[in-house]
Amino acid sequence: MSRPLRLAVIGATGRMGRALLDLLKDDARFELAVALAASSRLGEPVYAGEDGLRFTREWPAAAPEVAIDFSGPAGLGAALAHCRAHRIALVTGTTGLDQALQQQLDEAARDIPLLRAANFSLGVAVLRRLVRQAAAALPDWDLDILEAHHNRKVDAPSGTALALGEAAAAGRGVSLADGAVYAREGTTGPRQHGSIGFAVVRGGDIVGEHEVWVIGPGERVELNHRATDRSIFARGAIEAAHWLAGRAPGAYDLDAMLADRLGSPT
Amino acid sequence: MSRPLRLAVIGATGRMGRALLDLLKDDARFELAVALAASSRLGEPVYAGEDGLRFTREWPAAAPEVAIDFSGPAGLGAALAHCRAHRIALVTGTTGLDQALQQQLDEAARDIPLLRAANFSLGVAVLRRLVRQAAAALPDWDLDILEAHHNRKVDAPSGTALALGEAAAAGRGVSLADGAVYAREGTTGPRQHGSIGFAVVRGGDIVGEHEVWVIGPGERVELNHRATDRSIFARGAIEAAHWLAGRAPGAYDLDAMLADRLGSPT
Amino acid sequence: MSRPLRLAVIGATGRMGRALLDLLKDDARFELAVALAASSRLGEPVYAGEDGLRFTREWPAAAPEVAIDFSGPAGLGAALAHCRAHRIALVTGTTGLDQALQQQLDEAARDIPLLRAANFSLGVAVLRRLVRQAAAALPDWDLDILEAHHNRKVDAPSGTALALGEAAAAGRGVSLADGAVYAREGTTGPRQHGSIGFAVVRGGDIVGEHEVWVIGPGERVELNHRATDRSIFARGAIEAAHWLAGRAPGAYDLDAMLADRLGSPT
Amino acid sequence: MSRPLRLAVIGATGRMGRALLDLLKDDARFELAVALAASSRLGEPVYAGEDGLRFTREWPAAAPEVAIDFSGPAGLGAALAHCRAHRIALVTGTTGLDQALQQQLDEAARDIPLLRAANFSLGVAVLRRLVRQAAAALPDWDLDILEAHHNRKVDAPSGTALALGEAAAAGRGVSLADGAVYAREGTTGPRQHGSIGFAVVRGGDIVGEHEVWVIGPGERVELNHRATDRSIFARGAIEAAHWLAGRAPGAYDLDAMLADRLGSPT
Repeated sequence: MSRPLRLAVIGATGRMGRALLDLLKDDARFELAVALAASSRLGEPVYAGEDGLRFTREWPAAAPEVAIDFSGPAGLGAALAHCRAHRIALVTGTTGLDQALQQQLDEAARDIPLLRAANFSLGVAVLRRLVRQAAAALPDWDLDILEAHHNRKVDAPSGTALALGEAAAAGRGVSLADGAVYAREGTTGPRQHGSIGFAVVRGGDIVGEHEVWVIGPGERVELNHRATDRSIFARGAIEAAHWLAGRAPGAYDLDAMLADRLGSPT
Repeated sequence: MSRPLRLAVIGATGRMGRALLDLLKDDARFELAVALAASSRLGEPVYAGEDGLRFTREWPAAAPEVAIDFSGPAGLGAALAHCRAHRIALVTGTTGLDQALQQQLDEAARDIPLLRAANFSLGVAVLRRLVRQAAAALPDWDLDILEAHHNRKVDAPSGTALALGEAAAAGRGVSLADGAVYAREGTTGPRQHGSIGFAVVRGGDIVGEHEVWVIGPGERVELNHRATDRSIFARGAIEAAHWLAGRAPGAYDLDAMLADRLGSPT
Repeated sequence: MSRPLRLAVIGATGRMGRALLDLLKDDARFELAVALAASSRLGEPVYAGEDGLRFTREWPAAAPEVAIDFSGPAGLGAALAHCRAHRIALVTGTTGLDQALQQQLDEAARDIPLLRAANFSLGVAVLRRLVRQAAAALPDWDLDILEAHHNRKVDAPSGTALALGEAAAAGRGVSLADGAVYAREGTTGPRQHGSIGFAVVRGGDIVGEHEVWVIGPGERVELNHRATDRSIFARGAIEAAHWLAGRAPGAYDLDAMLADRLGSPT
Repeated sequence: MSRPLRLAVIGATGRMGRALLDLLKDDARFELAVALAASSRLGEPVYAGEDGLRFTREWPAAAPEVAIDFSGPAGLGAALAHCRAHRIALVTGTTGLDQALQQQLDEAARDIPLLRAANFSLGVAVLRRLVRQAAAALPDWDLDILEAHHNRKVDAPSGTALALGEAAAAGRGVSLADGAVYAREGTTGPRQHGSIGFAVVRGGDIVGEHEVWVIGPGERVELNHRATDRSIFARGAIEAAHWLAGRAPGAYDLDAMLADRLGSPT
């Protein structure tokens, strides 16, 4: 077994941060170098009641090798500068970036390896890849996407369902916007060839389920993902950090990690 | 083994009629007394090329014990008079009845046992019964209905999905019209408690699939039906004919047959 | 809203006990009268660190109206005497009862309402009921049961799969032992008519999934249950307690509660 | 539209041969050059009653561009010599080859393009490809395979389930024989890491369903195939013939065709 990687968690007191710390306790591949939290909420340094974990707003003197950020745009902005200056690989799930921050990210990727994702579920990442291929390999088959989420979700279809739709459209070399049918009700007429349909279920506390049906004459392929625990997002970010540390500078995503595992082009 | 039942098929040259004749060839519980076809199309009597089957427009002198009708309103009207006069039990799947024909049916049911259904799938009949109970037994759980059909279907949701929705609403003592959500797209807001949602898939040559999800906290029940062959409708009509022959006069449906099998109230 | 029911939790420091206390905090239908824990582990009274909950080995002077027990045979034995003497309705999920304790239970049921279950999932209870009916309503169809559990489970099929098999066999008036096929491998020969097959999946941290396929020519019915959270067992016990309080003395099970909800015979 | 390909069907009076002829009637990409049937059964030339199709034992003077063979080892042996001599691309689904015939095939592939498959379902071919990748991309997740077939099937698991198991094992660089668990019953102990489990359902007239579950902590990916019509095998063979005609000599399989569609390495 090799020496554990020194890892920083940025946004350590948020929901994702806590989930990360929880998983890292039992993961011998990593040594927690620092758990960073915004000073506005915590003062510095701060001692958490549970687990004896120490949160701080200061990076340690000895630079970590890789950082995971779920802190939000402000925290990410500050982290980027530090990571770039100290050549720390960075995994980030922060969303809601403005143009300036996006540009900072792009520039940082010249100096450090940087991996971004909106959904860190490994299963979803694999599914997107498989959906793209199935759509390409079976170009004449009909393709519909079902998704189910808890009853408090306020929009439809889910972002992941749309991402799967984008993957299918990419596999066919078309635009999702051109072919998407978001709802079917009343007199719809026959299915338009090449369209991508969505069907939505809401109920209970379903974490998230997605099914992609690729339907031909006399047979169909179903590519499904079922999540039962929100910890999968923290888990995927940790896998990404492990893969990213030590890579060449550049902008990466989960699909690049999978392609590497598969020994195939992205 | 008891003596086979003498059976008449009305509308014998239609798609359902042919499916009935096909199944009856191998069913020792029945003896085909007559295969009736409208004279306008066939003259009388007519000999069919395949199978040596003899179609006719005349009822035989010795009355059958039970008849199955898929002939359409005109054929049903004529058949009703004959069945009533000769005390022949009648199973009918003819739809599109006007008020006068509906009244004829109601009156005939005073003299003969008469079973009507819009969908003769036994599996769907069982599912409706189970859905009604699940909806009643789990009154606070969310309930959504998914259906998938071939890509030529021009309306949504399917009649069977709506019938399942009616069964669920009946189980809860509410009206489907009040709670149905036929499509979810865009900013929907959280799920309204007590609503019944529908989700629709279209593709390939799917014969018909229905899923009823009853979704509670931490668990769900799924009640599904999958059809792979349209012969199931003929098969269900034959089961109904076998059950109906010899019963007391009255109006029956498939649920009455199932209740009888289950030894329980409708 | 009526006055909350006074409830005792017996075995309050166990895994189920804690899950019960957790749910009861937000349930206005109940007032926690006492959280009983075995003195051997806790001394008396004991103060728990979290939530400020007070555990004790003594019943309060004012008798609760209903008690939920997951304490084990010793705790149940002691609880039975107290509940019987003070006319407290009792819900118990304790398993591993010897003959003497079983007899105590039977006798107590003459004086108090008493509900036992091995699996308190409401969804599973509903499914058992529906499976029994589907098996009876479709007596000639093939019936197979699939179950999936986490990769640490050491036996197969699951107790719940066997209970579903018993329900199916009961629906057909046969014995599961006569018809069960627990595994299919190699040269099996054609399926024996009337048998009930089992298929087993193991993997990940699956909480528990069960599918009952009732398979006819050209169609099938699937009756499925999917659990994603172990809290469902505590939740079902609380529902049972709410239903049981105030009933006539007697031995009840979850199916009796469902039958009551459905206004139908057990 | 380009000129239709001249196609030969070898074994034209068998079940697959008839299914091919049935589909070819409506496929403008092909012109039926000849429908070959063994002389022992048919004499020469033979006229079939239905459809006016003409079967013969003689190849036509003008060589077809591609042939599809489902005739059996004897017919394939004869066809190989002719195809090789006249540079006719050959698709074959004949199984049960002895060593000599296998060698003939290998040699023929030096001169003509030759595509073999045991299962011509395009959906299954795609699924195998996806399963291999999912197994490789998620190397630590548990992987189980479920299959369901009609109640007359006499062995288990199905050949396709085993082929999917081989694909999974290939994706992980292991041997299926080392890790396969064909049945789970009784005291199994915890799941062995890296094993590949099988679960089998039998019932009704199910054409064939396969599910591959790749199960991680808190999430799973399901890769499923459902067949509802046996015509899919003829359909896949026709797609293969269309793709194969005009290729360089060599031995191909369906995965090569899919890789070509996907623009990726096999």
